[in-house]
Amino acid sequence: MNEFQSGVQSEVQSAAEFEGRLRQIGAERYHDKHPFHKLLHGGGCTEIQVRAWVINRFYYQCSIPKKDAAFLSRCDSADLRRIWRSRVEDHDGDVNEGGGIRRWLKLAESVGLDPDFVESCEGVLPATKFAVDAYVRFVRDMPLLDAMAASLTELFAPAIHANRIEGLLANYDFANENSLAYFKQRLKEAPKDVAFGLDWVLRHADTLEKQDAAANALIFKTDVLWSQLDALHSAYVDPGRIPPGGWDGRLGVVA
Amino acid sequence: MNEFQSGVQSEVQSAAEFEGRLRQIGAERYHDKHPFHKLLHGGGCTEIQVRAWVINRFYYQCSIPKKDAAFLSRCDSADLRRIWRSRVEDHDGDVNEGGGIRRWLKLAESVGLDPDFVESCEGVLPATKFAVDAYVRFVRDMPLLDAMAASLTELFAPAIHANRIEGLLANYDFANENSLAYFKQRLKEAPKDVAFGLDWVLRHADTLEKQDAAANALIFKTDVLWSQLDALHSAYVDPGRIPPGGWDGRLGVVA
Repeated sequence: MNEFQSGVQSEVQSAAEFEGRLRQIGAERYHDKHPFHKLLHGGGCTEIQVRAWVINRFYYQCSIPKKDAAFLSRCDSADLRRIWRSRVEDHDGDVNEGGGIRRWLKLAESVGLDPDFVESCEGVLPATKFAVDAYVRFVRDMPLLDAMAASLTELFAPAIHANRIEGLLANYDFANENSLAYFKQRLKEAPKDVAFGLDWVLRHADTLEKQDAAANALIFKTDVLWSQLDALHSAYVDPGRIPPGGWDGRLGVVA
Repeated sequence: MNEFQSGVQSEVQSAAEFEGRLRQIGAERYHDKHPFHKLLHGGGCTEIQVRAWVINRFYYQCSIPKKDAAFLSRCDSADLRRIWRSRVEDHDGDVNEGGGIRRWLKLAESVGLDPDFVESCEGVLPATKFAVDAYVRFVRDMPLLDAMAASLTELFAPAIHANRIEGLLANYDFANENSLAYFKQRLKEAPKDVAFGLDWVLRHADTLEKQDAAANALIFKTDVLWSQLDALHSAYVDPGRIPPGGWDGRLGVVA
């Protein structure tokens, strides 16, 4: 790093320095530090709080393939499209089976929710929709480098998934191999995705301006994730102020 | 209203019935019922809470003319554009003076904030941005009828503005004719805007499908407003959990 002129940094960071900067963003802002995750993984969530998390997080899951399709729609490189397409496949699965969305609906069933209700997204908080939709639009509208950099929260995901599997298995009756299949699968998929994405971003962010843009994109994405948990926490935990018309724990419950 | 077949309503509502339906949405969902407004108008806000409200609400104010410009950009009717354009003028003012944005920055100064900091939007909560940006995009992307129906929260605004002026004047030292000029001016502007918008929506929502869409657009807009106060309340009041990187009361304070 070079900061000669009155503290203003003017030269591009080395790949190692820039990667360190991206990882520092995760260390400071990734949603593993949100109190809702502590509550969830520590076994402190009530049934309605677990269900609200499943309902709201589904909106994120089901939007990811649209986000990745938006990315594909802007890639001029067939090579890049061929690699990136696996993300859509991983989440959507095949015509008849498989995919992260179906695995998330298995989790929904296991916590006593009607999967059709969850899939309808009728119980999703407005603030969740605003945040997730902002992410899909970011990837649709911003430079490809920024769009890919925003996906690098996956750098920090394996730790939280491993932690979540352990915490849920230890603390909740619904948790088992079948209901937690989504997270087990992501442990396999995410490292491959993020290794490619990180390498691409480090190589293509070849000016300080692009590095700043990529870092800001990653910050934006951490805001998207954090805002979802803030909305969940505010509505269902503390102070438990469900917005007008919001899901109150009754609709879509089958168990 | 006609609900013969197993409770499913199939016929278009009369203008009076439909107006009643729209007003009922306000009665159930408008943000005058949010606890933050009770706190603010009742004199219960700390300095930092008032400032956080001013900073975050500015993001909404400064986005409104972009929203209305998006509306103008989609109007084929020059007559409609000529009428609607006054909304942009009301908020932006002239090249050198006037307009709601400048009046809001006067309010910012009066509560001890640097207007340049407020105008930079650096202190705005991510959740505020997600909600407000969703509104701008809604107006850019949805049918004109829906876009106009979303503006009808103005039906409910004069009451909250009158209530706010009274509450702020009674409870805060910063409140006076000059600092509250924004709200006084809106009391003049909003009734003209909403009279036109309501009449237009009532006349153009001539099928039940369009009435449903217009009602949903108004619900969407109440969600946009409510989410902003939820984010503010969660960050600065209860439990006071400021998101990572969020404004903590220090930056941009001059008094």
